[in-house]
Amino acid sequence: MNSHSVQAGRTGHRAPLMVNKNRLWSSLCELALIGAYDDEVTGLQGVNRLALTDEDAAARNLVTSWMKEAGLEVRVDRMGNIFGRRSGRRDDLAPVMTGSHIDSVATAGAFDGCLGVLGAIEVIRCLEENAVTTERPIEVAIFTEEEGVRFGTDMLGSAVVSGRLPLDYAYNLTDSSGRRLEDELERIGFKGEADVLTSPPHAYVECHIEQGPILTKEGFDVGVVTGVQAISWLKLVFTGQAAHAGATPTPLRVDAGLAAAQTIVHARELVDSGRYGELRATAGGLTVTPGLPNVIPGSAEIVFDIRHPETEQVSRAEAALAEYVKTLSATYPGLLVETSHMARTRDVPFDPRIQESIAQSAEALGYRYRRLISGAGHDAQEIAALCPTAMVFVRGEYDGISHNPREYSSPEACEQGVNVLASTLTTLANSTD
Amino acid sequence: MNSHSVQAGRTGHRAPLMVNKNRLWSSLCELALIGAYDDEVTGLQGVNRLALTDEDAAARNLVTSWMKEAGLEVRVDRMGNIFGRRSGRRDDLAPVMTGSHIDSVATAGAFDGCLGVLGAIEVIRCLEENAVTTERPIEVAIFTEEEGVRFGTDMLGSAVVSGRLPLDYAYNLTDSSGRRLEDELERIGFKGEADVLTSPPHAYVECHIEQGPILTKEGFDVGVVTGVQAISWLKLVFTGQAAHAGATPTPLRVDAGLAAAQTIVHARELVDSGRYGELRATAGGLTVTPGLPNVIPGSAEIVFDIRHPETEQVSRAEAALAEYVKTLSATYPGLLVETSHMARTRDVPFDPRIQESIAQSAEALGYRYRRLISGAGHDAQEIAALCPTAMVFVRGEYDGISHNPREYSSPEACEQGVNVLASTLTTLANSTD
Repeated sequence: MNSHSVQAGRTGHRAPLMVNKNRLWSSLCELALIGAYDDEVTGLQGVNRLALTDEDAAARNLVTSWMKEAGLEVRVDRMGNIFGRRSGRRDDLAPVMTGSHIDSVATAGAFDGCLGVLGAIEVIRCLEENAVTTERPIEVAIFTEEEGVRFGTDMLGSAVVSGRLPLDYAYNLTDSSGRRLEDELERIGFKGEADVLTSPPHAYVECHIEQGPILTKEGFDVGVVTGVQAISWLKLVFTGQAAHAGATPTPLRVDAGLAAAQTIVHARELVDSGRYGELRATAGGLTVTPGLPNVIPGSAEIVFDIRHPETEQVSRAEAALAEYVKTLSATYPGLLVETSHMARTRDVPFDPRIQESIAQSAEALGYRYRRLISGAGHDAQEIAALCPTAMVFVRGEYDGISHNPREYSSPEACEQGVNVLASTLTTLANSTD
Repeated sequence: MNSHSVQAGRTGHRAPLMVNKNRLWSSLCELALIGAYDDEVTGLQGVNRLALTDEDAAARNLVTSWMKEAGLEVRVDRMGNIFGRRSGRRDDLAPVMTGSHIDSVATAGAFDGCLGVLGAIEVIRCLEENAVTTERPIEVAIFTEEEGVRFGTDMLGSAVVSGRLPLDYAYNLTDSSGRRLEDELERIGFKGEADVLTSPPHAYVECHIEQGPILTKEGFDVGVVTGVQAISWLKLVFTGQAAHAGATPTPLRVDAGLAAAQTIVHARELVDSGRYGELRATAGGLTVTPGLPNVIPGSAEIVFDIRHPETEQVSRAEAALAEYVKTLSATYPGLLVETSHMARTRDVPFDPRIQESIAQSAEALGYRYRRLISGAGHDAQEIAALCPTAMVFVRGEYDGISHNPREYSSPEACEQGVNVLASTLTTLANSTD
């Protein structure tokens, strides 16, 4: 318990609620033991806790027990999303919601998603300890299958809550071994009885690690997130002609791997041209077939990850890439290029007032903060369709590496982010406008 | 049996020996049944007959029985190489040798190697049928593990014969499941008792499919091979920094996949510059790690296959590539590039007199021929260290695709190549110089 005395008032200045750094850290460490594995690449302990596995079930049970200990009233909806509710003075008012997810990718660290959930529970503990009552209820959410690794659609639980995806659609998704999501929910005991879509919250605030280098590199304590970039996953399949690397004269080649390499280089030239502003383009998924040194690649596949704060700029960049690929087909007669979208989401701007509330909380706490856009997708972008939403970013070490056991935010960085969350939630929950 | 009457003389013009096209074709088809499999990619029947497997043993037994039926005296050396000898009038003279291999890659067609062995046996059958006796003995060789797919070193049997690799080295090579080559030779009953290195042959002539498009595209019947290109397999390992594709600003990226793509594009620019003559450079082996769309590649690996008729030009091109990679390391601080050679062989020029003998045979048969260099490696390049050597190339369909079930040379194309082989072998075997 910290020594600050906190007084909740409807307006005016007050000493900010300060969370318990060590307790927050202990809960992060304890949760990270569920699904822990020895990562051979990094030599570190990683987390493998795919949605609705036995590990996810164990994590859900542990965190739900913590919610109850903190005084939250827990309900599980039919999508498996978990909500812990703390009453306000006026329980008829829409709640302020916070939360995130506790499922993980297969090679995860301890912070992605978990910090938002455990940070929210830590805020509730502090409110209890300091006997703070807010006007509005506060709800802590744990959304199902945020990562999308197991059932192929990310932000799945929050997308069902926001109404973007139907519950039946989610139920019938299957994992790689053919198991249905609904059956897995039942199997682990988390197909709840609560309705999925309740009335919209008053506001939603999510605390999350940045998963990028900006805050640390630029010396900021926390980030105020202005929105989520538009994201497109554009798949290009190049079909050329596999042939002997030694026996095929250069002018007769239709080298699919070379065409793919040229396209990757061109994508970077588009980014560097400055014509598309804050465009990011990454060719992380690249395969070449047959992949033998002495065979000219007969086919190659790139999945481009293209992002921009504005959806329209993503479309412009994609059009430019399509134009370039046409010139390649002219250069190498016989080259075929098929283009398809694997995923496409529009940019989601966050609510300026919630951003301002987060900024004022950081300011009052004496933290250095900056506004920045989120490069990654988050549950907040779904909930933003229901109510005013924004996020708090926590800085990470090692260039903010994430989805990797090296993912690390210091106890102090976590504490600062959750202090901002606490202050923002309290302010919002005391607003009866 | 063909109807041409053949008279073998020491000098002067004579009607060329004509082989039996249908018998040659039948033997190719029958051998292709051993190791046959249904290839899912092409929908065709392919051949999978890795060296010293049960399939290779069955093929060796079948072909050895054909050798004996054709009147050859068969011996197996300690390396498992098989030699079938036909006596000449003067058995004290060094034999003229011909042959190739019958092991295959895992996704092979019916012609690579097999045409050289079965063509040679067809020549012997014709000599017998036409009661042609040559001055010198003729030996038909089947070399062990030419492909190098199972034990990792290609042209292995012929390299041991030529003295480039020691027998003990070959014996101790292991396949991917740890089986020693010597043990496998014993297991299949082909660890022979004949000494490996006998006295050098008088000459060596190998008939082989081109494995490239030149003869067919340019309208030639057969090729006179001038030599084998210098080959280098240059491995480049790029180590950058894996990071989130959405959250990492472009200037902070160390994208190993982008660096690899730039290097592939640059290699093609070197080829197209014309500064390196007949340079060929292929990036067939390319992998990017972790290979996920939303992760900037932390590492990438290219295996370049670089070939040129002159060894020195390969070295010049490699030096230029190394210079380029240095500029990349300067462009992306933190990028590491490690370079190593996986394989490197010098160019092997073939003997001008043997080339001329092949050309005259083609001329006499009325075939359109051209001289060309071999892009692929062959047993002939090893035997060239022992005696005057050259090769006959047979044209292939589908751009000469090889190491693929689509590999196809027509019965007529095979017949023409083996007719040239027959005529050349007869001429050389009648030369007592």
